[in-house]
Amino acid sequence: MTEIKTVSINFTKQCQTIKSYEEALALVYWDMRTGIPPKGTQQRSEVVGLLSAEIFRLSTAPEFMKNLTFLKTVQDEVEPLVQALVIEMSKKAALFEAIPADEYAAYAVLQSKAEAAWSEARDQSDYKIFQPHLEEIIAYKKKFIGYWGKKATAYDTLLDQFEPGMTVAILDEVFAEVREAVIALLKQTQAAPHQPKSNLLERSFAKDKQIAFSREILTKMGFDFEAGRIDDTIHPFAITMNQGDVRITTRYDEMNFKMAVLGLIHEGGHAIYEQNIAPEYDGTPLSEGVSMGIHESQSLFYEIILGSSRAFWEDNYARFQHYAAPSFDDVSFESFYEALNVTEPSLVRIEADILTYALHIIIRYEIEKAIFNDNLDVKELPAVWKAKYKEYLGIEPKNDLEGILQDIHWAGGDFGYFPSYLLGLLNAAQLEVAMRQTIDIEATVATGDYTAIKNWLTENVHQFGKAKEPLAIMVDATGEKLNPKYLIDFLTKRYKDVYKLK
Amino acid sequence: MTEIKTVSINFTKQCQTIKSYEEALALVYWDMRTGIPPKGTQQRSEVVGLLSAEIFRLSTAPEFMKNLTFLKTVQDEVEPLVQALVIEMSKKAALFEAIPADEYAAYAVLQSKAEAAWSEARDQSDYKIFQPHLEEIIAYKKKFIGYWGKKATAYDTLLDQFEPGMTVAILDEVFAEVREAVIALLKQTQAAPHQPKSNLLERSFAKDKQIAFSREILTKMGFDFEAGRIDDTIHPFAITMNQGDVRITTRYDEMNFKMAVLGLIHEGGHAIYEQNIAPEYDGTPLSEGVSMGIHESQSLFYEIILGSSRAFWEDNYARFQHYAAPSFDDVSFESFYEALNVTEPSLVRIEADILTYALHIIIRYEIEKAIFNDNLDVKELPAVWKAKYKEYLGIEPKNDLEGILQDIHWAGGDFGYFPSYLLGLLNAAQLEVAMRQTIDIEATVATGDYTAIKNWLTENVHQFGKAKEPLAIMVDATGEKLNPKYLIDFLTKRYKDVYKLK
Repeated sequence: MTEIKTVSINFTKQCQTIKSYEEALALVYWDMRTGIPPKGTQQRSEVVGLLSAEIFRLSTAPEFMKNLTFLKTVQDEVEPLVQALVIEMSKKAALFEAIPADEYAAYAVLQSKAEAAWSEARDQSDYKIFQPHLEEIIAYKKKFIGYWGKKATAYDTLLDQFEPGMTVAILDEVFAEVREAVIALLKQTQAAPHQPKSNLLERSFAKDKQIAFSREILTKMGFDFEAGRIDDTIHPFAITMNQGDVRITTRYDEMNFKMAVLGLIHEGGHAIYEQNIAPEYDGTPLSEGVSMGIHESQSLFYEIILGSSRAFWEDNYARFQHYAAPSFDDVSFESFYEALNVTEPSLVRIEADILTYALHIIIRYEIEKAIFNDNLDVKELPAVWKAKYKEYLGIEPKNDLEGILQDIHWAGGDFGYFPSYLLGLLNAAQLEVAMRQTIDIEATVATGDYTAIKNWLTENVHQFGKAKEPLAIMVDATGEKLNPKYLIDFLTKRYKDVYKLK
Repeated sequence: MTEIKTVSINFTKQCQTIKSYEEALALVYWDMRTGIPPKGTQQRSEVVGLLSAEIFRLSTAPEFMKNLTFLKTVQDEVEPLVQALVIEMSKKAALFEAIPADEYAAYAVLQSKAEAAWSEARDQSDYKIFQPHLEEIIAYKKKFIGYWGKKATAYDTLLDQFEPGMTVAILDEVFAEVREAVIALLKQTQAAPHQPKSNLLERSFAKDKQIAFSREILTKMGFDFEAGRIDDTIHPFAITMNQGDVRITTRYDEMNFKMAVLGLIHEGGHAIYEQNIAPEYDGTPLSEGVSMGIHESQSLFYEIILGSSRAFWEDNYARFQHYAAPSFDDVSFESFYEALNVTEPSLVRIEADILTYALHIIIRYEIEKAIFNDNLDVKELPAVWKAKYKEYLGIEPKNDLEGILQDIHWAGGDFGYFPSYLLGLLNAAQLEVAMRQTIDIEATVATGDYTAIKNWLTENVHQFGKAKEPLAIMVDATGEKLNPKYLIDFLTKRYKDVYKLK
């Protein structure tokens, strides 16, 4: 066997070992966020710390780096799978290697403690319980930025980790365009003579019936229940163990079916992505979504572009009425569809409507940028949060629970993540237009079989896993780079329809 | 710091690391036996293999063995926790180290193949499919006994691994006494004029109501739901992540409540043991039940001694009727209690009643002993099995599925394990008599608060974890070694009561 072949096999095996530890860690996280008994969390944090440290150690171990360095020098001669692994692991190694092992381990322990404190703070609706942990998390993150190397700005360094190639310069421009358009459109809807009412959705829908209906929808979408499951949690998420085990979670409110039903459609979009990565990547670090912005394009395509559309509910409203019976028996399709798409300023991101959602993200983007680029004081966050909600949405939270404590992201140190949601929506709208070149979406949805839609997404997005850069995916699938026009067109069309605007 | 102190700290940390990997592995097992999506299992096996190998590696690593060897030489000077860890890890290392790594790995592969063959053989009800694998497993085990060192007999070596200090000499005598007594008592019950009927228990009891009732009972027993949970599975078990996270599982049959209700009481006994080990052992390998015979003494104390007793059901039958309503409205307490304790020869161990259960175990004990000490030919097993069932229970299996293929233990190489079940029952009966010296069990149960019972078990058994040998636990708690008199007295009293014998 040639040296290249031997090293390739050895290196692939090392990558698989790392992925297996990541699978164990993913299961630990899933368990901590779904069903772990409260008294088990403290000792479990040790397991999180240990597995994280081992992943770190293996990803930077001399025997691994030696293989990686060698394969980089012969990159054109190795097979494509190994080539993609080399690119991916080089990136990870650069992130990992910069940080001293003991600081990384301490940070991992801190993360899981901060999540517990966040949960406790929510129970008490008291930001002060969470604040010291958040300060520590941010201090670590700032130190890490120093290790990684500051890009154009400190916050650019974080952005790039979630969305390779994304910068504050691009986002400032794109987000400003979206913000203006959304605020203008919001005003138009507020001034419209036709005002659909959303409160007619606040009707009883039993949890078990919501589950049954959601399972039907997920099945239509192409979620494979032999390769996934649904569980209860506080803050919904999707998480992958391996391609045959991709889990989604949700929270139920019997007087607000949107939380679980649309939440599961959203998480289902994430899960379908990871269930449909090319099988040859399974068990390797390539078997993941490539970036948050692409990941969210899948969840938001299903939740918003498709799952809140007229065509989608024309296909599903009768079944919905059946499961919720008799609650929606007297609600016409038109009223239901309009109610679903009502826009109204609100305080909680995950309950926000499609239009104002963008503003929730832009607020978080601006705050994160201020924390890292302008050293915004952590104890000021609730006040800044309040002020921005007041300015963009015209309303403000009464307490920390419906304000600063609503998202788990910061407890996990995930700064630079929020913009991905809006990027995802931008990408989703751009993908939809491309999809229409070969698929009549409305006609497909009307058949009740959405397979063609899933297949298009698999062919253009899912299959590549981490082996193709986000920018390349978007350019190849849609013919151009990020363009806010598509989202603005989409929102304008949707809201003109719902509010009967000219 | 002295060298002893430094090495002690370092060694304790190494032990905690091993335990953390064991916690991760326990979660993986729990997940694979409760909710893993079917397509996720193949990749997950890689995780099992990886974590198992890492635990093996850490437990025999030079840097670990060096500390262990050093601390053994200064055993009297280290603190008690470290001392107990040294004893425990020396035992483990001796088991691991004796076997060449390649043979151990080959054996692990064989185990999983043998389990698959066992499963296949069950589907076909054909022992011949399983036989060659069983032969290989036994051949390995015999070779391993050579490595570990043969005690008084080859089978003694295996017994000692599950029950330190237990020997063929002791068991031959104790089991013979039990066998005689049980067979005699069984004949008496068969000849009794009063014959209670067990089939009146076969009435509908909805799953969710069974859960609610079982949760009430478990709470009374002292199971801490903040430190544990209940899940569905095919083959019920209890499994510990850490002291704050001890999980039990069960299977529901709406026409046979005993499966889940008594099953949960049984698994609850295991779980209460591990929830109540001294907190200073949490996160170390000492935080486990000390042996199978002691573990089963806890589960069987709760299931049989307490959970099938007159006093227990006097306290709980009204609640039971309430939850099962109206199914048991017309069943008197006396009929219910008698039905619960009916004895009748049967073929399947896990469905056997309290009295005949002992004979199922003794049959397995005698066969295992013959395999290892008298080279009983593996192809003769079905015939020997049949003959022994005929001799002791008066019935014989029609096929391999209800005979030799009913248990998974041998496929996994777990020879020497079965006796623990009967040892558990013997220990439970002996502990009960000791408990009566300070606690009026019936009066306590009648109050509906069983805390005093749990506290006695914690004080005398649970708290020690693996830091006290099983024999020492029994002698200190009961004042004497294993004595079959207590179980025989218990069974005699219970069955005289139920069958109204003189």
